[in-house]
Parts: sequence; structure tokens; C-alpha cells
Amino acid sequence: MIFYKSFTIKTKGFEDVINITDKINFFVKESNITEGIIVISLAGSTGSITTIEYESGLVNDIKSVLNNLIPRGVDYNHNLKWGDGNGDAHIKSALLGTSKSFSIHNGKIILGTWQQIVFIDFDNRSRNRDIHIQIIGE
Amino acid sequence: MIFYKSFTIKTKGFEDVINITDKINFFVKESNITEGIIVISLAGSTGSITTIEYESGLVNDIKSVLNNLIPRGVDYNHNLKWGDGNGDAHIKSALLGTSKSFSIHNGKIILGTWQQIVFIDFDNRSRNRDIHIQIIGE
Amino acid sequence: MIFYKSFTIKTKGFEDVINITDKINFFVKESNITEGIIVISLAGSTGSITTIEYESGLVNDIKSVLNNLIPRGVDYNHNLKWGDGNGDAHIKSALLGTSKSFSIHNGKIILGTWQQIVFIDFDNRSRNRDIHIQIIGE
Repeated sequence: MIFYKSFTIKTKGFEDVINITDKINFFVKESNITEGIIVISLAGSTGSITTIEYESGLVNDIKSVLNNLIPRGVDYNHNLKWGDGNGDAHIKSALLGTSKSFSIHNGKIILGTWQQIVFIDFDNRSRNRDIHIQIIGE
Repeated sequence: MIFYKSFTIKTKGFEDVINITDKINFFVKESNITEGIIVISLAGSTGSITTIEYESGLVNDIKSVLNNLIPRGVDYNHNLKWGDGNGDAHIKSALLGTSKSFSIHNGKIILGTWQQIVFIDFDNRSRNRDIHIQIIGE
Repeated sequence: MIFYKSFTIKTKGFEDVINITDKINFFVKESNITEGIIVISLAGSTGSITTIEYESGLVNDIKSVLNNLIPRGVDYNHNLKWGDGNGDAHIKSALLGTSKSFSIHNGKIILGTWQQIVFIDFDNRSRNRDIHIQIIGE
């Protein structure tokens, strides 16, 4: 069995970390697939899918650590060439990846108790983002 | 065909890098799936699945590079709020990811000669970790 | 349905970023799978698969940011032990990952307009690299 779905989320950009676990779980249930694999992906190059313990302290830590490693206000070649000022967002996205896959077992995605699936929007403006899921299994 | 299995490993924490390739290969063989996809994941938010050339020099390099980029003894908001002192472990895990997928071809996972699948425990204590695998194919 | 293919690319090493999207799309079409999952992987431990907006500015930014975070000319234990001087390449590869999975929907990989699949060779010499793809679906 194969099940595809997409949904849109509105983000604020600037390392906006959005918990998409409930939405994903809803579609896993709707798929009626109880054993299989799910791929979650962004169609875009300035955001990422990953997992964190979704609590405000850690959300802030991730923002500041990533901005410390890959600062926003730097003269990246991308910015100088295209003038959109989001070179850092592209690099963060390439580093963390735009898609992730997980196992589904007994009707649920394999996740820890304190582990949530998040979308992080690294872009420098508010955006509407399409997240796509594809589930294969039985 | 779909094949699910989980296994537990005892770790020391503090960037403990554990070679899980033999265990994974054992289950691939047991699955009798010779062409397909495997997803390997941790249920947890302070460890990661990745691949390295598993040799002691590189294991030490990865520890020191990651601790240089995301140091342990920093006042992360997560630590100030929850007092468990493992904010760095959460960030490292979000960066490297808790799950990875690979191809299975001719009965074997596609890996290089000097490439092993490892679990890295970033937490600040010894832990028992459940690693889950889901294989789909024929 | 399951479809496996591999292809070889010649790289220059030193963070050589190669756009493999057209090659991948060609094989997706050849597979006749219109709904499913694709796993793209390198058999090797000194390169990575990821996505970027493939334009020369960003390609240079990724090189310089990664070399700033994980410099090449450092006395890594791996280099001191084996003398091959590519310790940084191994660490970059472990960080970005050697495989990625994407959804296939309506006969196409889910990607943004400005998002390409790239292979990055971090090694310190020119290499011939085997990229493997495995597609499952219908």
C-alpha cells in the first residue's frame, strides 16, 4: 500500500521551529498502514525536517547555535549575486537536510517520548510551506 | 515483504560511537529481503545514526570536532530550564539526525569498504538504547 | 515494484559539488514507478548526498562554510594514524550523511523549483564515485 499527502504550514522564518508531529500522526492513522516506512520532505531549499524535544528552551538553543555556526549577516556569495539575503538559510538547509524517513510499527511512527518531528524554516521572511509525506507498507 | 526488528545497546554516553553494522547485517540476512530499503532509527532525541570509517582515530576526531562546534558546558536554555545538563546532546542529535535509510541490493546494504553504520550517544550518562529497523522489499 | 540502478561520476574532490538531479530523474522515469520512495546513497565515507539551490555563489558558500567549521589542514587523529590527510572529509561526510530519501509523486521526485540533488565529494583528490539508487513503489 502507498499513501501520499501534502499539507501547508505558515511560518515566520528566521529559524521558526514548528512541531508537525500531530499532523504527521493524523495522516499515518488515515493511511491505515501499520507496518512500513514514511518519508517526510520539504519542496524547498531553505528549510529542514528533523526531530527535537519540542520545548521552548531547546528551540531557542537550536536557533542560537545554528546562527553562531552559520551567521545570517555575512556577505555570502549567494547574497551578493542574488540579493535575497538568505544565503545562511540555504547552507543550514543543506546541512540538516530537507527530508527524513522513519519506521512505522504497530501503527505508530518510531519516536521517543520526548522526540517530536519538526520543520525548521531558515528563510528570512514569513512563508507558506508545503510538507509532503509518502508512506509505504501494509 | 516487510521486516521489523529492534535491539538494545548499552552505551557510555558522551559521544560514545558504537559500530552497529554487524547487528544490522544480521537482521538484513534474517529478513530474506535481497532488494529493498532499510530505515534505521533511534527512539530518542540525544543520539544519532550515521556512517563513518570506524577506526579509533576518527572516532576521537568526531568527538572533538562536535564538542568544539557545540560545547557541552554551556548555559543552554534547555539546561537552565530542566537541569539535566544535556542541551548540547539534543542539538547534536537534531543536526546529525536520529534515522537513516539505505539501499539493499543483492542481499547487502550498499556501503563502502571503509564505511560502517554507527550509533552515537551524545547524552551525558550511560544509557540503554533501542535501535529500530524496518526493511521493505522482496 | 523495485528498481535498482547505480552510476559513476568523476569528481575533483575538495568539496566538489555535483548536480546529479538530471541523472536521478532519468532513472525515475526509466523505473516507471510513479508513486513511491527513492533512496540515493554513496558507497563511501568521504562524500555526502544533500540538496541545494545549485548556483555557483551557493556552491562556493557551502565550501567555505564547511571548511571554516571543519578545516582541512588540522592534525586530526585519523591523519596522524593513516597519513591520508582526509580526516576533515570523513567528519563532513558523517555530519551531512551519505544517503537521502525522497518521495516520488505523480512520476516526479518531490523537490522545490530551486532545489537540486547534489553529491559533494569532500576527499582530497579526484575520484570515481558510485552513486546507488533504489526505488520502491508502483
